[in-house]
Amino acid sequence: MNEDTPGAGGGAGPGTVRPGGRTARVREAVLRAAGDALVERGFGGVDLAEVARRAGVGKTTVYRRWGTVPVLVADMLAEMAESSQPRADTGSLDGDLAALAGLILGTLTDERQGPLFKAVIATATGDGPTAEALHRFYRVRITEWAPCVDLAVERGEIPAGTDPAEVIRSLSAPLYYRLLASGDPLDAAAAKRAAAATAVAARAGVFVSAA
Amino acid sequence: MNEDTPGAGGGAGPGTVRPGGRTARVREAVLRAAGDALVERGFGGVDLAEVARRAGVGKTTVYRRWGTVPVLVADMLAEMAESSQPRADTGSLDGDLAALAGLILGTLTDERQGPLFKAVIATATGDGPTAEALHRFYRVRITEWAPCVDLAVERGEIPAGTDPAEVIRSLSAPLYYRLLASGDPLDAAAAKRAAAATAVAARAGVFVSAA
Repeated sequence: MNEDTPGAGGGAGPGTVRPGGRTARVREAVLRAAGDALVERGFGGVDLAEVARRAGVGKTTVYRRWGTVPVLVADMLAEMAESSQPRADTGSLDGDLAALAGLILGTLTDERQGPLFKAVIATATGDGPTAEALHRFYRVRITEWAPCVDLAVERGEIPAGTDPAEVIRSLSAPLYYRLLASGDPLDAAAAKRAAAATAVAARAGVFVSAA
Repeated sequence: MNEDTPGAGGGAGPGTVRPGGRTARVREAVLRAAGDALVERGFGGVDLAEVARRAGVGKTTVYRRWGTVPVLVADMLAEMAESSQPRADTGSLDGDLAALAGLILGTLTDERQGPLFKAVIATATGDGPTAEALHRFYRVRITEWAPCVDLAVERGEIPAGTDPAEVIRSLSAPLYYRLLASGDPLDAAAAKRAAAATAVAARAGVFVSAA
């Protein structure tokens, strides 16, 4: 609750605490408080001073390090991208797609992450910087998981020229569609169907780049 | 701009105007004004009195007929479902799916309907009655287009037991995912790929109901 703790935002914290450790803890506490506020009250209800108070962090630290709510939400998405699970390597496209579908399902049905994604996506529909941060999040995830597709090409499971980004989007889309639009159950059957449909279409060459 | 025009909300309008015609025109004007307000300022910015003013309709008419903003948004979705184009019947599953993908693409990229869908979906993430109205909208669309799938089963193009709802969701999802989440281009190539992936998966039996 210290206002203006020297260096708290810059990673040069004083005393016995390692600077990196303290900076990381401040970020974690602030992003958690921001996420709570976003889920509870939506984008318009997020207030930096209130986030600082909830996080037990000096207000000036939050203003100096993040400055605005869109920057805070963008950092939250960056943190989610950093901390998401690494890609699977099961040795088959079917196995890898099932693993990724399970990971997405787990995220979207998680009692905290699910509402957080809904809130961030709702915000992104009306706020350019949040939309950009959201799109960056998906690009990071695609980069992380693209090797699954490249390896499937190398193993001869799917045609050369298959676009990894299209495969991963095809797998993700049905689960997001249920969460955001249709409201149909987000369950293991839906994840399994998304993986099966994507695998069949990938084998048939649907995701081969036109270029 | 008449306040309290007798019967204006009930379809029993006085004078030379046919009742049905006047009621329909009032609804059209009010829903258009509500859509404008929703796109411009989001759910929280929709005000019934302001909608009435913009629509050139008595405030009491709007309060009596719709009462609350969620009811107004629900009626907007009902009107969109009613007025959406009837299903295609091209004689093949590929043709019908391409037609529906083109229809969805046209809606989501329309300069009015696209932002309206974004605004309604953003609202639905935080408002139960709007979410219910949105889900109802997709159920209506699925009912309208389901015969395309049933006819494909009859023609022997896809296996018996294929669930029409799953086919239509699979076709819709990649386009909504681009609009709402990933921000990737919503173009003819995306629509074509969605239709092709869905057709291949349908032929392979991915959408056969477990029951």
